[in-house]
Formats: sequence, structure tokens, C-alpha cells
Amino acid sequence: MPLTPEQDAEIADLRATPRTTLRAVSEGAEQHLYVPKPVLDHGFVRMIDYMGDDAAICQAARVSYGRGTKSVQNDEGLIRYLMRHWHSTPFEMCELKLHVKLPVFVARQWIRHRTANVNEYSARYSILDREFYIPRTEDLAAQSSQNNQGRGDVLGPEESARVLDWLREDAHRAYDHYEQMISDEGQQGVARELARMNLPANIYTQWYWKVDLHNLFHFLRLRADSHAQYEIRVYADAICEMVKDWVPAAYRAFEEYRLGGVTLSASGVECLRRMLAGEEVTQETSGMSAREWREFNSQWIT
Amino acid sequence: MPLTPEQDAEIADLRATPRTTLRAVSEGAEQHLYVPKPVLDHGFVRMIDYMGDDAAICQAARVSYGRGTKSVQNDEGLIRYLMRHWHSTPFEMCELKLHVKLPVFVARQWIRHRTANVNEYSARYSILDREFYIPRTEDLAAQSSQNNQGRGDVLGPEESARVLDWLREDAHRAYDHYEQMISDEGQQGVARELARMNLPANIYTQWYWKVDLHNLFHFLRLRADSHAQYEIRVYADAICEMVKDWVPAAYRAFEEYRLGGVTLSASGVECLRRMLAGEEVTQETSGMSAREWREFNSQWIT
Amino acid sequence: MPLTPEQDAEIADLRATPRTTLRAVSEGAEQHLYVPKPVLDHGFVRMIDYMGDDAAICQAARVSYGRGTKSVQNDEGLIRYLMRHWHSTPFEMCELKLHVKLPVFVARQWIRHRTANVNEYSARYSILDREFYIPRTEDLAAQSSQNNQGRGDVLGPEESARVLDWLREDAHRAYDHYEQMISDEGQQGVARELARMNLPANIYTQWYWKVDLHNLFHFLRLRADSHAQYEIRVYADAICEMVKDWVPAAYRAFEEYRLGGVTLSASGVECLRRMLAGEEVTQETSGMSAREWREFNSQWIT
Amino acid sequence: MPLTPEQDAEIADLRATPRTTLRAVSEGAEQHLYVPKPVLDHGFVRMIDYMGDDAAICQAARVSYGRGTKSVQNDEGLIRYLMRHWHSTPFEMCELKLHVKLPVFVARQWIRHRTANVNEYSARYSILDREFYIPRTEDLAAQSSQNNQGRGDVLGPEESARVLDWLREDAHRAYDHYEQMISDEGQQGVARELARMNLPANIYTQWYWKVDLHNLFHFLRLRADSHAQYEIRVYADAICEMVKDWVPAAYRAFEEYRLGGVTLSASGVECLRRMLAGEEVTQETSGMSAREWREFNSQWIT
Repeated sequence: MPLTPEQDAEIADLRATPRTTLRAVSEGAEQHLYVPKPVLDHGFVRMIDYMGDDAAICQAARVSYGRGTKSVQNDEGLIRYLMRHWHSTPFEMCELKLHVKLPVFVARQWIRHRTANVNEYSARYSILDREFYIPRTEDLAAQSSQNNQGRGDVLGPEESARVLDWLREDAHRAYDHYEQMISDEGQQGVARELARMNLPANIYTQWYWKVDLHNLFHFLRLRADSHAQYEIRVYADAICEMVKDWVPAAYRAFEEYRLGGVTLSASGVECLRRMLAGEEVTQETSGMSAREWREFNSQWIT
Repeated sequence: MPLTPEQDAEIADLRATPRTTLRAVSEGAEQHLYVPKPVLDHGFVRMIDYMGDDAAICQAARVSYGRGTKSVQNDEGLIRYLMRHWHSTPFEMCELKLHVKLPVFVARQWIRHRTANVNEYSARYSILDREFYIPRTEDLAAQSSQNNQGRGDVLGPEESARVLDWLREDAHRAYDHYEQMISDEGQQGVARELARMNLPANIYTQWYWKVDLHNLFHFLRLRADSHAQYEIRVYADAICEMVKDWVPAAYRAFEEYRLGGVTLSASGVECLRRMLAGEEVTQETSGMSAREWREFNSQWIT
Repeated sequence: MPLTPEQDAEIADLRATPRTTLRAVSEGAEQHLYVPKPVLDHGFVRMIDYMGDDAAICQAARVSYGRGTKSVQNDEGLIRYLMRHWHSTPFEMCELKLHVKLPVFVARQWIRHRTANVNEYSARYSILDREFYIPRTEDLAAQSSQNNQGRGDVLGPEESARVLDWLREDAHRAYDHYEQMISDEGQQGVARELARMNLPANIYTQWYWKVDLHNLFHFLRLRADSHAQYEIRVYADAICEMVKDWVPAAYRAFEEYRLGGVTLSASGVECLRRMLAGEEVTQETSGMSAREWREFNSQWIT
Repeated sequence: MPLTPEQDAEIADLRATPRTTLRAVSEGAEQHLYVPKPVLDHGFVRMIDYMGDDAAICQAARVSYGRGTKSVQNDEGLIRYLMRHWHSTPFEMCELKLHVKLPVFVARQWIRHRTANVNEYSARYSILDREFYIPRTEDLAAQSSQNNQGRGDVLGPEESARVLDWLREDAHRAYDHYEQMISDEGQQGVARELARMNLPANIYTQWYWKVDLHNLFHFLRLRADSHAQYEIRVYADAICEMVKDWVPAAYRAFEEYRLGGVTLSASGVECLRRMLAGEEVTQETSGMSAREWREFNSQWIT
């Protein structure tokens, strides 16, 4: 994620010019503003702006005239209550704006979260940089044999080296041709909107992404999860670090009721009742399929 | 819109405690923060928070590392270009949060704009205040004879007095019974979620409403329009005053390309071509219905 | 919910004219088309149109060329898998269109579900009918003493009679004045958009409401729930009956994983682990507040 | 776009099994169902399902009990009125479901239209086919010198041949390596979710896409426009052909008021007033920038 000296200077400049405001300020968020948090080999996430804080959630929930805060303890209790009972609208009253640099195949998953605002770098209008995501060998895993959309063991050294060579060489050759196609030296030069089609899905793109806290939590629950693809999970993890500092009480409630929470089916509830009453329940007597029983049962074993 | 002394104090307190931030600050918006702008007889709009400024629109459009600003003049040109060519996503990068007090029948129109975040005062949970919108005599108009969903001349004094008496008396009687229903003195007291059904549509409610600038402009285009009902238009007008100070360049572009703009049909374009070529076009030769022709033609007469 | 003879004839006519289509057809849904299902004293829900069936969910999940169906059993397994793992997009591929007649205060809750399409009867344009929701005595309950937004015991006969009299008299008086205001006999007649403000929140309105199956399930989970206000729950229940016939496999999965399911917090999961390991856990040792513990614990007692 | 014999058979089967329904049927749409309309070299669009017809738009606008239709002529007038006055909600009452096969770089533009439902073929779960978009020589154009995001003249034969060779060779080499990476013969085989990153943006993907008519018109207005990239415009054009047959009156209104319409700025309206009054207006006296004046003026010259 090497920024150019000009980019570093722009960021330093922004952080060096504090201003005065009457708005709600989150000290925790202020620390993060503008600073890129490295993710993967060339990517980053950085916070560009935020609206609201923990107290703003309470203020909206109470439709109040002043700050929401009655007391910090009081606010935390209200936030937990709202999260537990799925009252989502007060969390929508906080907003976060991020600048993200990420591989195209990650961007394609990310954009499926529709309730957000996005401005992506345009490859119709501008020229993309020669930057590709090349996994570390420890992240280069085999197809999972149990899970059709997951990965299993890390590849052996020989296979791993072969894969990395292909990824590197194909990417750079494709980019060489991209450059040669759009060059106007001694030729017309093909339109950028066409030439970009030669570039692979591990090239980096970037965008501004703005989202409210409720929808951000939904994104984080799905993408900071162990079933999410590693390459998007690391972005979600980086964002979690920011949210934890920005709205600490809301983030704690999110960890308690969403990230660390569990959803049981009607059959699962029934099984638990029987188990707590002392009955020995097996898959056969559970009414669940083998797979569901395995998923259900694994939750009570530590 | 009389606030209680406590509410006034809370607002004064918020305005008296400036804080330091590294975020984009709009001086024009800062002036408005927290101060209620009176609308109708008991309503108001007040700005609670904002995200971004004119430069933030350009920053997102350019997916840039520093402030969007190259120069103020440059930014204004870009903003006009974006507005003219319906590039809406950069405008979505600004966000406004308002606290609004408004009659229920206005709230019912307002809520139809779905791309916004809302926290309304809950009449299931809390007791509504005894405040009703009673029109001024000069706003009390007859049904329009041309437009099925509009109003015509102001009512005569006698009819007007009769209407106002009914509105006042019915509202207060309904509220008296509402109070008596929910009272637990000497009786059980009916649930608030039930008792509220006795209250008329001119009672005031309030909410926190948060929206991005693109969707706000869409709201304002429809609701600050002469075809909008007067009682929602005055809210839109009040919001226009805030937006003008918050993001002046974007607001000027909005006035030029949306508020003051006009959409022509294919037939309208064709007629204009003929008219500019010197032809005398009439409704008969225009290919438009009488009504469309009237609407079309009225635009060129000042 | 008495329809006029003309309305009955229109519905009978629609049901008497079957047509041929190549689209997916759900026999269960066809039975419901156009027929109003009575709800409350004057309301109804009726199905106007639907798109897709259980197989369409699978077809979209598989992005397949033919019908989704491999076998009915296979499809049911896939649908359960999708629901269990929160894969919501295939459920969005089914769509339902309803015509609903409902009191205004119910409509105000309902409209908060933003991801839906709505066309409401316009009281700016048209005159509302003289129809009000008046609760049955057995639904007329006192304010709950535990739950600020709920109801408790049914009112006693005397109090109940008093409340019903007020509701009836106030509604009819308000409507009398509404009629007199808009009348143009011997006066100008006030604009409909103004006169409507005199009408109470228990007057009936109606709308066309169209929603995809994923968002409909979200609506039903919240509104068919015991914490929802009775007057909206009866609409949700009526819609459940339709959905059960329209997409039976999806509805069964919804009952298993959503309606009958339970969400545990991280602390709840931890407590269950200890309880299943034989430990006696009390509120004091649970790490939960008294209220949370009560909610948590009640789930294992039948 | 060659389908396999199995796929052809599935489609033939679906078209050979008409069923009976009580829902609104559009004869024009029925003709299109399931049949792939070829687009680009391997792509297609095919209609999978539809909800509603022209009469359904009117039925919703009138919130009526029977069919919307009073008379066909009457309906067309109402539809034109709704379109002219931006009453968008009745158009949302119609819904279209398409199956689309398209290059990834087109999919990336398309997905930016957020108000739609999408199920894309998963390259985490499944293996992509060896199919790439390779432009026809007549579509291979140089970068526009005037428009930073457009194309200019067609490339000369030599340059064109060079570009096409690169596109073909790079794509096939990338795909060869993709296949070798995921193969489990004599090696572990890298996870599909990783291997896909080697594939270029002109590889084909496919999805089910479902959208309401209002949002579809918005998509078509932007994407069937001459400023849209050719490779997405051909999809929009193909969809226009379907919509024209499905809801002919709505499509005519769309052509009249959107596709063929023009939006004027406040300055443009003012200039027209002066021009119609006989004044000779030039860029200098117009108050517009050179670029805006050029865009404005070109509309009156045929």
C-alpha cells in the first residue's frame, strides 16, 4: 500500500488542520481520520468522515432536544436494549465514509450490499495502476472437500510456487498489453473502456463507500464471519477496529448480540429444552438432518 | 413552536460547546446547527448534524486522497457538470440529519420518500402533546375546480370561520377524550397504542430524519414545487435555506438544473425545433393534447 | 368489510376468466387471487398478483436454464439450506402484490417497511369513506404496567363502554364536519387536502402493496410476532395464510428458522454451555441483567 | 451464445407447457418467455417471468377493485399523465425477471443500479466457462479525444488485429492456468474462490435480475443512451424490445417523455424564451459555458 509522497502529504495536511465544530464528535474516530490501515498486499481502508456517536443513537431513539445522553451507563443500557430487540432505526442515525483500495474480485462481493453509497474509480475515464493482489503462500489454500464454497489446507510449496508464478506472470503480461493498447504512440490507441477488459480480477480498484451503522453492522456480521472469503474478511476486520473506537458502546452490543450470538431453529430450541430437562438427544431423535445436527451440536462444545 | 425552557437550555448548551474535529466543516451549516426554524403554527425544522461539504462532493467524484478541492472555481464547474449529467453518486456522499416537528398528515406524505432514515416519536410508547395544526385564514382555500388534487381561492370569511371552529373544537374534544381514556385515575386506563386512534391527522408528531444530498434534492424538487401541498412546501422551503448555506455550490447547481429546469417531451422538442425555425405551431399541429399543450406553452410566456 | 355489489361483481368477473400463461404457476396462490380476506371490522387483504413459486427460488439460486426443480425433495432441502444460512437473494426472486384496506394508524406502522412498492388511495384527490376501526370489547385492553409499548388486561365493561362511545361519537362527528367542509352546496367547499386533517387515525385507508418474498418474511417476522400491536398482527396473520399456500416449502423453512427460531447473545450461548455441562446457572452468575435473564430463561420452560 | 442441447430442451419444454392462471396476462410478454435473445458474441437476455401489464399500472394508480381498465384509450391517457408528472409508484407495480449472460466488466456497471434483485452465478462455488467477449473489429474504437469516457474512430486494421490477438491470447492463457490451478489431478488444487482472480474482465458471467418497471425505465434511460458504453447499450436495447411488447402503452410514454425527452436548465429555458421572442442569442449572451452552450444548441438543429 505504498502511497506516493504527494498522497502522504495530502493526508498529513488534513490531519494537521483541526477545525471547530458544534456537531457531535467522537474522540475515538478522530484518531482514525484519513490514515490508511493496510490490508492485503496493496490495499487499505481509511476513514474519511463520520456522523454521530453513541449518544447520537440514544438521542434519535428518544427523539430528544439535547444530547441523547442521560448518563453514559444509561445510554449503554438503551443501546443494548435496541440491539437485542432489533430496533434498527436508531443505529441508522450514524454514518461512516471510507476510502477503500481493494482487488476487483473483492469489490464484486462487497458491492452486493446495496444499501450504501459508492463512488468507484472509473476505468472508463482513467488508467488503472499496475497493482495486483498476489496471496501470501500461507493464504494459498486448496479447495475444501466438505464445503463447496470454501478452502481447505494450505497448498504444498511446489504447487504454491507454480500458482504464484502464474498469477504474477499473467497479471503483468495482461497489464503490459493493456498499456500497449491504450498508448497513442505510433497508433490510435484503443479506448480505455475497452482496454480494461484485458485486466484480471486481482487488479486493485478503489472507491469511496458510505454507509449507515445499521447496514455496516449487517455487512460486518456477514463479512467478519469465518465463512466469508479471507480476502474480504481482512477488510471487515480492519473496519471493526475503527467502529470499536468510533461508537464503543454500540460495538460492544454488536459483539454480544450479533458477532458472538447464535440463531437457533425451532427444532434447535426444542432439542435444547429436552437436553436441559436431562434427556440424551441424538441426531436420530433430534428431527434434524445430519448436517444441521452437526452445525447445531458443535455450538455447545468448547 | 414554543419550546420549553428546558429545551431552550439544552439547545443553548449544545451551541455553547464547540469542539475540535479533523473532518470537513461547513461554516454555513454550523450557523444552523440545533436552532429550530419555525414552520406552520407549532412545527419546526432544525439541523442536528451534517456530513461533508461542497469539496467532499468533488473529493468523492475524483476518488482522491486529499481534499477534493483543486480550486473553488474548479470545484463549482465539476459540481455543475455532475448535476447536469445526472451523476448522482457524488452527491450521495453528503448527509444531513434533521429534527422535524410536523402534522401527521404532512408526515404521511413525507414518509413516502423511502431512501432516508427515520426515528419517529412513538405514540405506542409515549403520550402525544396537545398541539394541532390550525391553518391561518389566508391558507384556508377551496377545492380547485381544475386540479383534482389542488386548491383554488381562499375561502370567504364566514365559511372560513366555520371551518376553523370545527377544526379547533373537534381536535380538542378528541384530545380531551384521549387524555381521559389513558388516565389511570379511578379506572384501568386504555393502552396508549389504542387511545391514539382517536386523534386527528392535524396533531403534531416529530422525528429525526437523515438523508443523503442526492435524495434530499429529489425530495426538495418534488416538495418545494408549486404543485406540492402548501403544508409540506413550507418545510421544503425551510430546508432549502439550510442546504443553500451548507453546500452553496451544489445548491446553485440544483437551482439551475432541477428547480429552475424544465423537462420536455419528444413532441415538445419537435415543436420547439419548428417554432425556432419560424413555424407557427398551434395545439392542432403540435401533436399534443389540449392539456399538454397548455402546460408546454405556458413555459415560454413570462 | 362489505364490498359494494359492483366491487363483488368485478372480483367475480376476474375469477371467472382464466387465461393461459407460460410462466410459473402456484396452484395454492391461484385459490387466493382477488378474494378479500376480512381483517378487523372493515379491513381486508387480498392477493392481486404473484410472481414465482418454490421452484423459482431454486432456479434463481442455481442460475439455471430450466425450472429450478430437480425433485421436490431436493428443492425443499435447498430452500432450508438457503434460509438457514441467510442467503436472502433467491427469496427476493418471488414477488407478491396485495390490496389492503386498513386503519390509518396501522398504515403508519406498516409503511416503515421501506423496501416495498406502495400506491395509496389519495385523500388529496378523492373523498374518504365513513369507515372507522372500532375495537371489539375483548380487544380493548389497558396499558401494560411492565411494557411501555404494550397492553395488559382487557378493560372492565363500564370503562370499555365509555371508551367505545367516545371513539364512535368523535369519529362520526369528525366525519360529519369533514363532509360539511368539502360540500360545495351554498359555499365554496374547502380543499380535500385540507379537510382530511380533521379525520381521526382509526379511519380506513387502502393501498396496493408489492414486496419481494425476502422482505415479506422480514415484515412477517416482526409483525406476526406477539410483541407487535394486535391491529397489525391480524394483517400479518392473514398474509401468512396466503404465503403458506403460495410457496409452501419456503413458508415451512420460514417457520422453522425465523418464526419459531430464537437468537441467543454471546452470554446466552455461554450460559447454555455451562448449563448443558451440568452447572446450575443463576441470574447472578449469568452475567445478564435481570430483564435479559428473564427473557433468556423463559425460553427453556414450556 | 450457443446453448447446449440440454439447455435448448429445457427451454423448449417450458414453452411447450402452457398453464392456466387468473392473473393479469400480457400476450406480448408471453411470446418472449424463456427464449434467449443473443447479445454480443456469447451473451443473451431472456425473460423468465413478469408481473402485471399496462392495465395493472392503472389499476394501482386508481387503487381499484377490478381491472384497472376503464377503456384502453382511457388507460393510455392515464399512463401518459403519470409518466409526464413523475408519478412513479404505479409503474413500480409491474415487475420483470431476466436471465442475463454478460461479460464481467459489463456486469460491474450494471450492478451499480441498486434497486433490483440479483442472483449471480458463483465462482466461489462453481467453475466458470471458457467464454470471453472479443469485440468485432467494427466495435474496436480508439479513445475519444473530446470525451474522456468515450470512444472515437474505429481502429485501423493492423492495430485492430494486434489488439484482438492480445485479447484472445491473454484470455485463453489465463483460462488455461485457471483450469490447471483448480485441477486436483496429481496436486491439491487451489480453491475456486482464489483461482478465479486470474480471469480477465471480459469473461462471461450470468445472473437472474429482477426489477420493477419504474427502476427498469431508469436503467434503460441511462443505458440505452448514446453516452452509455456500447457493450451495455446492446443489452439495454434488447430489453427495450421486450418491454415494448410487454407493456406497450407504458413503453410509448417512456419514449415520449424520457428517451426522446430533453431536460433544460434554468438558463436554457431563459434562452429559449428570448429566442422565441425573436432575439439572436449567442454563447456570449447565453450565460452558459462553451460546452453547455454546444450541448444546448445542438438540440434544435436536425
